[in-house]
Amino acid sequence: MKKRLFTPGPISVPEDVLLEMAKPIIHHRTPEFLQIAQQAVEGLKYFFQTKNDVFIIAGSGTAAMEASVVNLLSPGDKALVISGGKFGERFVELIKTYNCEPVVIESGWGNPVDLRLIEDTLNNQPEIKAVFATLVETSTGTSYDIKGIGEIVSRKPETVFVVDGISGLGAVECRTDQWNIDALVSGSQKALSLPPGISFISISEKAWTKINNSKMPRYYLNLKKYKKAMEKFDFPFTMAVGLVVGLRKSLENIKQEGIENLWQIHRRRALAVKNAMASIGLNLFSKSPSDAVTAIVLPEGIDGEKFCSDMRKDFGMSVAGGQDKLKGKVIRISHFGYQDEFDTIAVIAGIELMLNKYGYKVEPGTGVREAMKVLFSI
Amino acid sequence: MKKRLFTPGPISVPEDVLLEMAKPIIHHRTPEFLQIAQQAVEGLKYFFQTKNDVFIIAGSGTAAMEASVVNLLSPGDKALVISGGKFGERFVELIKTYNCEPVVIESGWGNPVDLRLIEDTLNNQPEIKAVFATLVETSTGTSYDIKGIGEIVSRKPETVFVVDGISGLGAVECRTDQWNIDALVSGSQKALSLPPGISFISISEKAWTKINNSKMPRYYLNLKKYKKAMEKFDFPFTMAVGLVVGLRKSLENIKQEGIENLWQIHRRRALAVKNAMASIGLNLFSKSPSDAVTAIVLPEGIDGEKFCSDMRKDFGMSVAGGQDKLKGKVIRISHFGYQDEFDTIAVIAGIELMLNKYGYKVEPGTGVREAMKVLFSI
Repeated sequence: MKKRLFTPGPISVPEDVLLEMAKPIIHHRTPEFLQIAQQAVEGLKYFFQTKNDVFIIAGSGTAAMEASVVNLLSPGDKALVISGGKFGERFVELIKTYNCEPVVIESGWGNPVDLRLIEDTLNNQPEIKAVFATLVETSTGTSYDIKGIGEIVSRKPETVFVVDGISGLGAVECRTDQWNIDALVSGSQKALSLPPGISFISISEKAWTKINNSKMPRYYLNLKKYKKAMEKFDFPFTMAVGLVVGLRKSLENIKQEGIENLWQIHRRRALAVKNAMASIGLNLFSKSPSDAVTAIVLPEGIDGEKFCSDMRKDFGMSVAGGQDKLKGKVIRISHFGYQDEFDTIAVIAGIELMLNKYGYKVEPGTGVREAMKVLFSI
Repeated sequence: MKKRLFTPGPISVPEDVLLEMAKPIIHHRTPEFLQIAQQAVEGLKYFFQTKNDVFIIAGSGTAAMEASVVNLLSPGDKALVISGGKFGERFVELIKTYNCEPVVIESGWGNPVDLRLIEDTLNNQPEIKAVFATLVETSTGTSYDIKGIGEIVSRKPETVFVVDGISGLGAVECRTDQWNIDALVSGSQKALSLPPGISFISISEKAWTKINNSKMPRYYLNLKKYKKAMEKFDFPFTMAVGLVVGLRKSLENIKQEGIENLWQIHRRRALAVKNAMASIGLNLFSKSPSDAVTAIVLPEGIDGEKFCSDMRKDFGMSVAGGQDKLKGKVIRISHFGYQDEFDTIAVIAGIELMLNKYGYKVEPGTGVREAMKVLFSI
C-alpha cells in the first residue's frame, strides 16, 4: 500500500533530498563537509529570516528547546511561558527541571493569547528574564501572535524572547529579526521536509549577553562551544552528516521557491481543509487555526484513535490523533513536508470515506469540491 | 513540484523496489546474482501464469516482440496479424522486415476483433505459421479477446499464437497456459512497476518446434542461446543486473498481492475513470476499453498535445496524448505502475481542473465523486 504522511512530523521527504542523503557518507571534519555546513547555515539564516547566529544541533527539537533554557537562564531565574498546549507545557517542565521559576499564562487549549496580559505581567514582574512562546502549537493547531509578543518583549532591555518554531517555521510567516525574536528554535522533520534528527536555534546579540552571563551547567548543549566551532563552520561534537547534506539540499529548494511563496502555499492548503471540513459539518478545534497543522473535531461518538489507525490501515494515510486532553477527540493534519495540492485532496477524500465507514454520512466529493475551489482558485 | 506518472509506461517505481535497485551492483556471473535471477524467473512464471520457459532479455519491449518474430518464423513464412492500433502495426512492420508475409486483419482503431474472421482466415490459408495479437493496444486503450483467439489457434497444430502483452500483462487477466498462448511478450515498465530496460518472452513446447526449425538469422535475440544459458539460470549476454534485482522484488510484491487481486484493482480504477468521465460528459475512445490504459476523447476544440503538456506543467502529472491518427484528440491514462486509488482521484481532479482552464466548464469534484463511489464501493 502506498504511504502518505500527514502527521505533523515526521513527514515525507522529497526524492531529490533522499537521493542527496543516500550518497556515501563523508567525514564531518573535512573541508568538503564544512563547505556543505556553511551553505546549510547560510540557508538556515534565510529560512529563519535573520542575520543572527544559527546553530545546528544533532538532536531533535526538544534538544534545541532545552538549549534555549539552559543557555539563556541561570538557576532561580523567573521566566514567563505562554502556554496553550502540550508544547507550551514542555517549556514549563524544562524551566522547572533547571530550577528556574516559570510564570505561566495559560491561554487555554486552542485559544489565542491576550497580549495585554503579557504586557501587564512583564510590567508587574520586571524580574522576568525571558518570555517563552510557541509559533504553532502542534497539539491544537493554533497560531500565536509572535510579532505582537515580540514587540512587547523588545521594550524590556533585560528580557529575551524565545520562540519554539518547531512546527511552524517555514509553514507560517515568521521573521526573526523584524519580530524581535532573540532565540528561535526549529527542527528538521517539519516544513524543512527532512527526516528527524537535527534541530536549530538562532541567537541574537541580546541573547548572547544572557548566555555569556548564565551560570547554568551545560555541556552538549552549550552554545558557546557551538559559537566557537562555527567560526570555522565546524561543530563541537560529531554532526549528523547525512542530515546536514539533506538540509543544504532542502534549503536550496526553499530558497528557489521563496519563503513568502511557501507561507502562501501552506495558507491555501489549510484554508482548503477548513472549507472542506465546514462543507461536511466538521469544525476545527482551534479558535486561531494555524496554516501548518489543522486539528479537526470529530463527530460525537467517533473514536479518534481508531479513526487514525483505520486511516493508516485502509488508506496508508498517517494522520495524527489528539494528545493528552484531546486524545480520541480530534485528528490532526499537517500541511508541510513533501506534499502538494493533490495530497490535500487525497486526505480530504480519505476523511470523507472514513467518516462514511463510521456511520457519519457524507456525499463523497463534497469536501473535495470545496478544497479544489480553494487550491486551484476555480 | 511533485511528479505523478500516469503515462502507459514508464511509470512510477515503488520506493522499496528503488531501494533494492540502489544497492551496490553485483557482477552478473556470480552465484549471488544467479540465485536472484532464478527467483525472478520463477516469479515471472507466476506473473505469466505459465509452466513454459520464460526468458529475460536486456532490451525494451520491442526487442522481445522482435524475438518472437525472428525465432518463430522463417523467411517467406505467412503470419496473421490482428491489428487495431500502433502496436499491432509494429508486428506487421517486423514481419515485413524479416521477409515474411503478413496477412492483416484490421479491426479498426478502438474496435474489438471479429473472431469468425480469424477462424475463416486460418481455414482458408492453412499455410499461416503464426498468429500475432495484442493483449491491450496501448494506443487506443483497447482489450482483445485473447482467450477466444487462443482457442481458435490451438486447433491448428502447425500454427503458433504470439501475444504482445507488454501493456496489459499484470493489469488485465491473461493466462498463458489456459489460453493457449505459445509466446507471450512483456516488458518491465508497465504493470511490473519497474524502470524500462528489460523485457520477457515465454515459449511453449509447440513454439520450441518452430524455433528449432526456424531458418531466420538471429544472434542477440536467439532464444536457443537463452534456453541453454537458463539451464544454469544464466544469460547468454550481459544482463541488466540492477533491473533484475528490482524485478525479483517487484514479483515478490505481486505474488504477495495475488495476480487475481491485481486484475481486480486495475478493473476498479479503469471503471472509476470511465464513470468519472461519463459524469462530466466525456467518452472513452475504445469500444472495448481495457483496464490497463484508458483513452479519453477530449471535447472538440481542445488540443490534446497542449492539454498533456499543461497537465505536466501545471500539476506535475504525466498523462499521454494520442499517437498517429489520434494525435491531439485523446489523452491516455494508465492504471498500472506505482499508483493507488488516491492517485486515480488526483488525476481525475487534474483533468477536471484542466478542462475548466480550457473553457469546458466542469463543477469541480463531479468526476471525483463518481470515482470515489467505484473505488471505495460507497
